[in-house]
Amino acid sequence: METKISSKFIAELIGTFGLVLFGCGAAAVAGGDTLAQTSGLGLLGISLAFGFSVVVFAYAIGGISGCHINPAVTIGVLIAGRISVKDAVVYIVAQLIGAVIAAFVLKTILSGQLAGFTSGEWAFGSNGWGKGYQNEYNVTSAFITETVMTAVFLFVILATTSKVGNGTMAGLAIGFTLVLIHLVAIPITGTSVNPARSFGPALFAGGQALSQLWLFFAAPILGAIIGAILWKVTYSESSAA
Amino acid sequence: METKISSKFIAELIGTFGLVLFGCGAAAVAGGDTLAQTSGLGLLGISLAFGFSVVVFAYAIGGISGCHINPAVTIGVLIAGRISVKDAVVYIVAQLIGAVIAAFVLKTILSGQLAGFTSGEWAFGSNGWGKGYQNEYNVTSAFITETVMTAVFLFVILATTSKVGNGTMAGLAIGFTLVLIHLVAIPITGTSVNPARSFGPALFAGGQALSQLWLFFAAPILGAIIGAILWKVTYSESSAA
Amino acid sequence: METKISSKFIAELIGTFGLVLFGCGAAAVAGGDTLAQTSGLGLLGISLAFGFSVVVFAYAIGGISGCHINPAVTIGVLIAGRISVKDAVVYIVAQLIGAVIAAFVLKTILSGQLAGFTSGEWAFGSNGWGKGYQNEYNVTSAFITETVMTAVFLFVILATTSKVGNGTMAGLAIGFTLVLIHLVAIPITGTSVNPARSFGPALFAGGQALSQLWLFFAAPILGAIIGAILWKVTYSESSAA
Amino acid sequence: METKISSKFIAELIGTFGLVLFGCGAAAVAGGDTLAQTSGLGLLGISLAFGFSVVVFAYAIGGISGCHINPAVTIGVLIAGRISVKDAVVYIVAQLIGAVIAAFVLKTILSGQLAGFTSGEWAFGSNGWGKGYQNEYNVTSAFITETVMTAVFLFVILATTSKVGNGTMAGLAIGFTLVLIHLVAIPITGTSVNPARSFGPALFAGGQALSQLWLFFAAPILGAIIGAILWKVTYSESSAA
Repeated sequence: METKISSKFIAELIGTFGLVLFGCGAAAVAGGDTLAQTSGLGLLGISLAFGFSVVVFAYAIGGISGCHINPAVTIGVLIAGRISVKDAVVYIVAQLIGAVIAAFVLKTILSGQLAGFTSGEWAFGSNGWGKGYQNEYNVTSAFITETVMTAVFLFVILATTSKVGNGTMAGLAIGFTLVLIHLVAIPITGTSVNPARSFGPALFAGGQALSQLWLFFAAPILGAIIGAILWKVTYSESSAA
Repeated sequence: METKISSKFIAELIGTFGLVLFGCGAAAVAGGDTLAQTSGLGLLGISLAFGFSVVVFAYAIGGISGCHINPAVTIGVLIAGRISVKDAVVYIVAQLIGAVIAAFVLKTILSGQLAGFTSGEWAFGSNGWGKGYQNEYNVTSAFITETVMTAVFLFVILATTSKVGNGTMAGLAIGFTLVLIHLVAIPITGTSVNPARSFGPALFAGGQALSQLWLFFAAPILGAIIGAILWKVTYSESSAA
Repeated sequence: METKISSKFIAELIGTFGLVLFGCGAAAVAGGDTLAQTSGLGLLGISLAFGFSVVVFAYAIGGISGCHINPAVTIGVLIAGRISVKDAVVYIVAQLIGAVIAAFVLKTILSGQLAGFTSGEWAFGSNGWGKGYQNEYNVTSAFITETVMTAVFLFVILATTSKVGNGTMAGLAIGFTLVLIHLVAIPITGTSVNPARSFGPALFAGGQALSQLWLFFAAPILGAIIGAILWKVTYSESSAA
Repeated sequence: METKISSKFIAELIGTFGLVLFGCGAAAVAGGDTLAQTSGLGLLGISLAFGFSVVVFAYAIGGISGCHINPAVTIGVLIAGRISVKDAVVYIVAQLIGAVIAAFVLKTILSGQLAGFTSGEWAFGSNGWGKGYQNEYNVTSAFITETVMTAVFLFVILATTSKVGNGTMAGLAIGFTLVLIHLVAIPITGTSVNPARSFGPALFAGGQALSQLWLFFAAPILGAIIGAILWKVTYSESSAA
């Protein structure tokens, strides 16, 4: 049974909405140590927020759209020949819209703080690099990190959802991979590997988040292409046996 | 084989008892940094306590009652047409009783502290908002947060337990969603998305927890209705193909 | 195919050895914030160490012995009529031996600290209550906590491994329950719900750990009996339908 | 269908690359508390990074190579009679190459810090012991820890992937075991149980990391042999019934 494209569109929109709401929301609302006696989430909690979001939506909408919720993933899957160009475009539009709505909802909630809206805290949900951003890495480290991480991400996605993977556990493995990527990369770029996830917050944060946005489209897409090729090589060797 | 309603009643009572015992217990007993050299749970540990409770009871009593352990979930499932009005009432009564018993047990345990009982902000893990509550958000942010979060929660519940979901992993995905909701919302409302979970502690904490209780009935129920409709739209599009 | 009792004996011994090695080891070696710039495990990390140990051995030796690795569990399972008295005795002996060996290995490793052996740190692996122990709760709170927690533990164990449970996920759900129990109870009793886990460390720690050991036999066993009865009531109602 | 050895070689190389990239990367980049208001990963986050890496690659490449990504595992599996000597050599070469490439990528990324490269104690996540390393344990404690932990690791690996194990959950259980090992052993040796994981970082860190490398080959291999024998005894008893 073929699922209608309008259904896939809604699913990808809601899934990306959830990823940005939970992931960036955890970072912006609860990441730092602001409560007197109770520790904030820290880098570990933020990492789990992004990764568990993928786990959750993989099992919720995986059966409808495959749960890409990430333009880089859609492009990698396109290269692997598992989606049409037309559907890929619909997916990416849905993902960008979902991310923007989530960032808007987050901005609205954050503006309800009695102490007033502190945009610095909110900017933590944005990606970036360089002077004043997290642990201050240069653009080369940022580009390498986003590219290598997305390549590994796509390799795992394509492998776990192939014939040699395990259908039941694929969603968990893919989500855990996003946890792992965040466990390493937050101090470097805040961790994107997902142009839509960077696009939503940047639109409302403006400034540096917007001017550095190009890298979070370029590097993840390049990484996705590398990951898809890497998997093709590994798998064709495997199936040729 | 149809399960008797008395069995479902016991299951929902025990499940909600466990959710409040573990979730609110973790917050009230172990959440803060009170031990000299060892860190308390922090927001991450408390979030996992609530979410893992749902994972655990989903696999323990899911086969008996479906493991709602939350009046908002029961109402969402009712709208989705998967439970009768009569059964829904029995479920909600069981959930409220279970939550009250758990809050009573917690109060009893906490009163055994040698240093004497300190009924603080986190008393029994009550929900709230505004001046003096957590990071101090206004009522609008509190209402939006509880509504949006419950909507996403119901969407995931109905999706993962539908034909396009994965029966084995649904319990894990639903529990992880409650983790995610807590990872964002604790600084805002303490996180409810569950009228029973708010009702039990408020009964013993009294004061502001009781006077603000209305929001933790209104917003989660509204969110549950929205989530159920959202899923109906997504799924009917899907199955119409 | 019936598994030989000698095989079950080895499995229960190794499993309980692992539970104490990982759980008490995490608490004693890595629980506190002793490294200059890197946070120790805290209550969350210690809780995961105990719970994940059960997850791991459930899938490793569950197929051989059922992975009780806890005398209270064996007694609960006995009451539920799923093990013979003779086998139960063999299980409990294996569990106690495994716990003692693990505590001995831990003591040996800890004594290799260049700064010298600090028994205070080591005592953290022991259970207890009252003045000078963790957050200082009285004996009533300690007894109620251990009894209620073990009752819920046994209820979940018997439910998830029954016909209405999910065979694949039972091990995860049971292990997560032990995580939950620790997330609440460490500040009160250090969390036992397992006489063998208390017995091993107490033997080497001596003093108060030994004189308070009776509670960590009495309360968990009482709780296990309550949990088994609770499940029988719930399930018989269910299957009578 | 037999998988080609070249495919297995690529899979083991990528898997070990990922383990070192994520595990050592998390330790070196995000482990410490360096961000002003947000907590670093701490020992818990680093432990999850190593363990989740095994979970992820178990489901990604398990169907191709079995996902050893560890020379000690390959040797244990060899003793258990589940791999040929020829294949074992290919696996180990791939693992060592993957680990070296990952350490090189990490070094490159870390050298992009604007504040300049600080080659500290945690440099690239190297293993070690003694004066100035973590909590300062002697060589005996280090050797016992690495041997015992690898023995338990191999026991769980061989048990969960045997006939009495659960194919779907084996990858999760094995990865969680590596989490547990790290929850205990980081303050003692930084945790290896994997010669390849120690080899890559040591090559670039030099100094003490290189001169102490022998232990992280000797102890894990000895432990793997013990673990394989332990499982043979347990299982032959089991299957003889």
